[in-house]
Amino acid sequence: MEELVVLKFGGAVLADEAHRREALASVAAIQQLRLLVHGGGSTATDVAEKLGVESNFIDGRRITTSEMRDVALMVYGGLLNKQIVSELQQSGCNALGLSGADGELICGKKREAEINFGYVGDIYSVNVNLISQLLSFQITPVVAPLSFDKTHGLLNTNADTIAATIAASLTKNFRVRLLLCFDKSGVLKDPQDEQSVIAELSQKDFTTLAKSGTISAGMLPKLSNGFAARTAGVVEARIIHWRDVVDALRGEAVGTALEK
Amino acid sequence: MEELVVLKFGGAVLADEAHRREALASVAAIQQLRLLVHGGGSTATDVAEKLGVESNFIDGRRITTSEMRDVALMVYGGLLNKQIVSELQQSGCNALGLSGADGELICGKKREAEINFGYVGDIYSVNVNLISQLLSFQITPVVAPLSFDKTHGLLNTNADTIAATIAASLTKNFRVRLLLCFDKSGVLKDPQDEQSVIAELSQKDFTTLAKSGTISAGMLPKLSNGFAARTAGVVEARIIHWRDVVDALRGEAVGTALEK
Repeated sequence: MEELVVLKFGGAVLADEAHRREALASVAAIQQLRLLVHGGGSTATDVAEKLGVESNFIDGRRITTSEMRDVALMVYGGLLNKQIVSELQQSGCNALGLSGADGELICGKKREAEINFGYVGDIYSVNVNLISQLLSFQITPVVAPLSFDKTHGLLNTNADTIAATIAASLTKNFRVRLLLCFDKSGVLKDPQDEQSVIAELSQKDFTTLAKSGTISAGMLPKLSNGFAARTAGVVEARIIHWRDVVDALRGEAVGTALEK
Repeated sequence: MEELVVLKFGGAVLADEAHRREALASVAAIQQLRLLVHGGGSTATDVAEKLGVESNFIDGRRITTSEMRDVALMVYGGLLNKQIVSELQQSGCNALGLSGADGELICGKKREAEINFGYVGDIYSVNVNLISQLLSFQITPVVAPLSFDKTHGLLNTNADTIAATIAASLTKNFRVRLLLCFDKSGVLKDPQDEQSVIAELSQKDFTTLAKSGTISAGMLPKLSNGFAARTAGVVEARIIHWRDVVDALRGEAVGTALEK
């Protein structure tokens, strides 16, 4: 089976134009088939503030009101997605941007929980055929963190979850490597010490470190999604600094590799 | 050759949620292959104002500064494009949103004129293969008014021009009908009288009416683009009210038909 690299870039790297261009140049240089999922939370918070739309969080999770969903469509579906596509095209990578609604790429269901997070979704299916077709045309899909619910429309959805779920779904047709890229060197034993990267992490150790609070907040869904992808057949899942993409694809032991 | 309907909806109908849903329901009901191009100027002006980005016009044409281009990416590429795609999907029409950069759909060149309109582009090529592939998968492309320039990135581009140019390019593979839809009943002899619709317009009469000032402003590029599409082989080009889409496709003589 052909190799496919699924990458996820967080909002922090994308909000800084110089960093974004550097990160995208490394994506454009990848020789394998590739698919990029992006976040954009920090830009969404900025734009919401300028528009006078309040950003509310419960336990670090954004509440997506109807107004905040419009901001998500503008920032994730529009500004960032189109900047990324345009800059990849400028680097010679034939990119095409998609949200969950486009071609029903990612179907989700509005989350019904005790706490009402608003227009937030959990994924239940990925349109593997559409992605495979685009890849067969040498197109690089660029996916915004929005899933689609036939009843409620577009839903704000965690970008790590989207990347890991797409990666897992595509194991049917490809040998998939998953790189979750952010602005740390990997999973850190001590969040204050960039040198304390855990080179390999087992699910058992993850459970222990989560219980002790060493791993917390946004790292929890990132890692549990990464492990789920590994269990589903993704051959490699790695949490890395966005500057380490080239090294990771060269097979170097950068960042944190998740064991099966 | 198979029939393809290329529709263009202006920003005014899209800014009103009830009108947008009604207009999109008529698109979803079309039996033929179809492609939708949308505008969005009025929403862009609103969002720009809220963000504190100044809207400047010369002779009715927007000046697209770098900040205004970001607004265009947000509103055309994001908010409106994704709302349209999501609402078409909800109506059972498998839509997929695109800007000019996505798959290099519409290549443009930044306009170099005496008056500097900023990030504004003129189209020089359409990716007919990509559109034809998507249509062959029964996907309805939804195109935002942004063309792509390899040097300058995404450019604000007139939506009527995009629709007419795509229609003309696709005559290679399809029997193309072009419907430019807006909130008037057609081209009016007297702009104050909705009953004064010109049923058929020749290029010669258009030139006369343009010279006399009866046809002016935004109608000029709309009509010259429509005539150019007719000359290029589009079998029908019609300026109609967005409520008349179904009637027009049934062959009724609604709005203004442009003669070859």
